[in-house]
Amino acid sequence: MRRFDRQLDDLQTRLLEMGGRVESAIHNSVGALVDRDEARARQVLANESHIDSMEIEIDDFAVSLLALKQPVARDMRFLAAAIKINNDLERMGDLAAHIAERALALMQHPPLPLWDIPRLAELAGAMVHDSLDALMRQDAELARRVLLSDDAVDQLRDAHCRRLIGSMEKDASAVASAVHLLFVVRHLERIADHATNIGEDVLYYLLCVDVRHRGSLAE
Amino acid sequence: MRRFDRQLDDLQTRLLEMGGRVESAIHNSVGALVDRDEARARQVLANESHIDSMEIEIDDFAVSLLALKQPVARDMRFLAAAIKINNDLERMGDLAAHIAERALALMQHPPLPLWDIPRLAELAGAMVHDSLDALMRQDAELARRVLLSDDAVDQLRDAHCRRLIGSMEKDASAVASAVHLLFVVRHLERIADHATNIGEDVLYYLLCVDVRHRGSLAE
Repeated sequence: MRRFDRQLDDLQTRLLEMGGRVESAIHNSVGALVDRDEARARQVLANESHIDSMEIEIDDFAVSLLALKQPVARDMRFLAAAIKINNDLERMGDLAAHIAERALALMQHPPLPLWDIPRLAELAGAMVHDSLDALMRQDAELARRVLLSDDAVDQLRDAHCRRLIGSMEKDASAVASAVHLLFVVRHLERIADHATNIGEDVLYYLLCVDVRHRGSLAE
Repeated sequence: MRRFDRQLDDLQTRLLEMGGRVESAIHNSVGALVDRDEARARQVLANESHIDSMEIEIDDFAVSLLALKQPVARDMRFLAAAIKINNDLERMGDLAAHIAERALALMQHPPLPLWDIPRLAELAGAMVHDSLDALMRQDAELARRVLLSDDAVDQLRDAHCRRLIGSMEKDASAVASAVHLLFVVRHLERIADHATNIGEDVLYYLLCVDVRHRGSLAE
């Protein structure tokens, strides 16, 4: 194995390790929200700086490989994709921390029904997991499925926002909590968007197909 | 002038041109909101795809220069910064489009007071402008000032969100509009965050100082 191939493998391993941490952060932030578990929310916030350091290390490593090794074709596409995926993962880590902050704020108020939030979190989490799995297994079909899932997330979000607005109109005492939940829904939707970005980057790397800004893929 | 220097100049020119378009999009989206001007909001939405294409072109150009020219030191830092700045600009273009969509939705409801939204938009717009100016003039002091402005934006946002929640609690008929305005405030705050990222990238390029994830700069 060439030294450069080992370095590319190492980069992928680090990306997937970061992905695992981000998946946990998402899972735990929503768990803290559902169970009103303060310790779990605080743990997500405490772990955020570690995700941030991983991002800087991975970014520096990938940019230096890109600049120093003059990769071509597939290797070059992998490095360009890795830099973007790394950035998307870091943003997801931020969003998980924002959800944990909202979970803490919500614990100060009487509980509101969460309706589809656990389902939305499950969908978004599956998209994150599948997008990273697609990278690891070099599976373009799976990457494509991630892109198609985004519509289901958007539908759930719309239905949920309408419900929250309805509950605020009916009950003024629910407004402060409902606003926190609106932002939780928004953060979950953004997590799904970043998973979609990763799916697009995996497709670009594997197939050299650029699907950015084209919306969901027509079959 | 070396051919490579000309290419780097060309890259900077394209980035600044994209920055100008993004600044206009932000300005026009907030103008459409303030004046309830449907045509102006639709124009912002129509221009978004052009910003998206510019991002793809700039990204491909910068990644190819990075991979093919083996730049070192300052040139390499410039290319790495350009790739990130390009991504931040594209995200700001998206956020301007989201504001335009909220402006259109708000036109379906009776007007609510906008309070500090124009002031918040002005602050965020100035941060975008200054961060790009800092890049153009290679002015580290200006880049640093952008980072320090972010706190003022966050304070305005907090005050505004409290007011919006108060108005929803008092008047159920204001809820739907107030939710749109909450998201406008959030989008403006995110635009300021992206300007902060650009300021950080300019500092990294000019001074080789990495200030990512360190919060605002201590003097």
